[in-house]
Amino acid sequence: MRTMTGPAASRRVIGIDLGGTKLAAGVVSGDLVVHHRAHRFSRGADQNEILDRLVEVVDELKLQNDGEAPIEAVGMGIPCLLDYANGRAVNTVNLPIKDLPIRDIMNERLGLPVAIDNDGNVAALAEQRFGAARGKRDVLLLTLGTGVGGGIVLDGRIFRGSTGSGAELGHMTTLADGPPCQGNCPNRGCLETLISGTAMAREAKAIAERDADSAFARELAEGRDITGATVTELAADGDLDARAVLEQVGRYLGAGLVSLTNIFNPEAIVIGGGAAAAGDLLLATAREHLDEHGLTPNKDLVELRPAHFGAEAGMVGAAALAFTECLGEPLEER
Amino acid sequence: MRTMTGPAASRRVIGIDLGGTKLAAGVVSGDLVVHHRAHRFSRGADQNEILDRLVEVVDELKLQNDGEAPIEAVGMGIPCLLDYANGRAVNTVNLPIKDLPIRDIMNERLGLPVAIDNDGNVAALAEQRFGAARGKRDVLLLTLGTGVGGGIVLDGRIFRGSTGSGAELGHMTTLADGPPCQGNCPNRGCLETLISGTAMAREAKAIAERDADSAFARELAEGRDITGATVTELAADGDLDARAVLEQVGRYLGAGLVSLTNIFNPEAIVIGGGAAAAGDLLLATAREHLDEHGLTPNKDLVELRPAHFGAEAGMVGAAALAFTECLGEPLEER
Repeated sequence: MRTMTGPAASRRVIGIDLGGTKLAAGVVSGDLVVHHRAHRFSRGADQNEILDRLVEVVDELKLQNDGEAPIEAVGMGIPCLLDYANGRAVNTVNLPIKDLPIRDIMNERLGLPVAIDNDGNVAALAEQRFGAARGKRDVLLLTLGTGVGGGIVLDGRIFRGSTGSGAELGHMTTLADGPPCQGNCPNRGCLETLISGTAMAREAKAIAERDADSAFARELAEGRDITGATVTELAADGDLDARAVLEQVGRYLGAGLVSLTNIFNPEAIVIGGGAAAAGDLLLATAREHLDEHGLTPNKDLVELRPAHFGAEAGMVGAAALAFTECLGEPLEER
Repeated sequence: MRTMTGPAASRRVIGIDLGGTKLAAGVVSGDLVVHHRAHRFSRGADQNEILDRLVEVVDELKLQNDGEAPIEAVGMGIPCLLDYANGRAVNTVNLPIKDLPIRDIMNERLGLPVAIDNDGNVAALAEQRFGAARGKRDVLLLTLGTGVGGGIVLDGRIFRGSTGSGAELGHMTTLADGPPCQGNCPNRGCLETLISGTAMAREAKAIAERDADSAFARELAEGRDITGATVTELAADGDLDARAVLEQVGRYLGAGLVSLTNIFNPEAIVIGGGAAAAGDLLLATAREHLDEHGLTPNKDLVELRPAHFGAEAGMVGAAALAFTECLGEPLEER
């Protein structure tokens, strides 16, 4: 029996999604509607600057929200391996954060209750409770951004591992002896280094270098940087090089989905993050690979879906976390 | 608060571990002592022959057990993707079993209550409750045999996935575009195809073919087959080729442990199965790889241990399952 209630639509919190490149924050009400938004870059900032920018966006959002229902708490999704019980960011692959008691620091600087969790976990929570995997109990999520985030919901609850630093689905060894992984990860051939936006950009730049007539080379010649978004945009315009990059990424994503499907026998896997904007170009290739290489019956039982909350799944999930952890509001399916 | 009680030592069940090569069965009492044993080969048998051999070993054990406490139930660990609720073996990689309502069939043929589960799951249960990972709540197990079995215990309970066909840890894509996997698995570069006993034998045979002076070539010349056991025995005798095979397998095992440690943030990973007889030759290499390539803090928090029940973990776990599922005896840590 699932109740049809959730946090009151009249209550408001701030949800923050701290990514390896960008920081997205929003004022979110109990019905998970986003009322105000604020953004910053996170790339290039050191640990103290990141903390400052987190405080800045909260101040900016409070100002935007002035005169409306008050902000009662802040939830943050951060791309870190966490000591969950102590609200501590132990280690992170794509940001310069290490051994930081971030929950207590933010709590003190903001004067508000603060809840933190891994960014993939909160995005998975949002999608399982209110998004693309609503009604399913065993759900995984991959977010393709600067890195590859992972979230695991088992029997309706976030799975964090024994201390809170699990669900690093981007760091499965997928191509042993492959290229070194990104950032602070000491592994080779991680899924992240094969399918993240960073990986897409790396492949695109390699093409630009090989072929001066390619659309990627033209982008660089015209002074634009190449990112994962460049690849998905050019692919949508029909550029064959960009499509080839997405197809390769789709196959590696498929190889990762085979692992996850064989391990977890999940009901659904949700694909989110900026790079997932490639949509069918990416997901259709990945699905085909999974159908061909996954074990029966798992591959037939799993649904593959794009994130309902798109690039805002992390932000909405962080808000949902704040409602549950700080305000004690139940987060039931509605 | 954990109780100190368990199934009564006076009650007896039969535990059966059905592997890809061998079938091992034993009469087990509530204190998990094995009183009688029976073995058969499973390799080469078709589905009906396997069922016949399962019935045979139970009859043989009943005879051995005659005059002692009666056999009350049978537990079976089978290397299958299961429909757990219906006791159905849906698919298997290393045996010719498909879509078989094996629990009901065995129940009818044996006239005893029967419980079935994946062989890796029951082995993990035995090790977590009574063996190498006693006292830990989040435990994984890999068994290196004909294939590579996997078992997952989360917060003290077996994790089976949404329908019972999860925990196929041997079928993570570890070397994308690598060699085709074994048996019925349609994937390439699965962990299983890199570290199973079958994989060890394959490598050893390749060496025998390249080098007629190798110890492996001598084994073949003298009419002996090469198996995973050949490799571990020759390595223990100091043969450099055999040690090289184990080192490569150890590195790939390490690559798999990196994935599992990053995903699950477990307290312990237990290594069992025949090939694990290689002991430190294998585990030390794998541990080194994990230390070098795993994410902090997960790699530092996980303990790597050989199976306490050794090659009998599956049998003892199957018996433990029968006590819980068929007799309603609690299986608490003791």
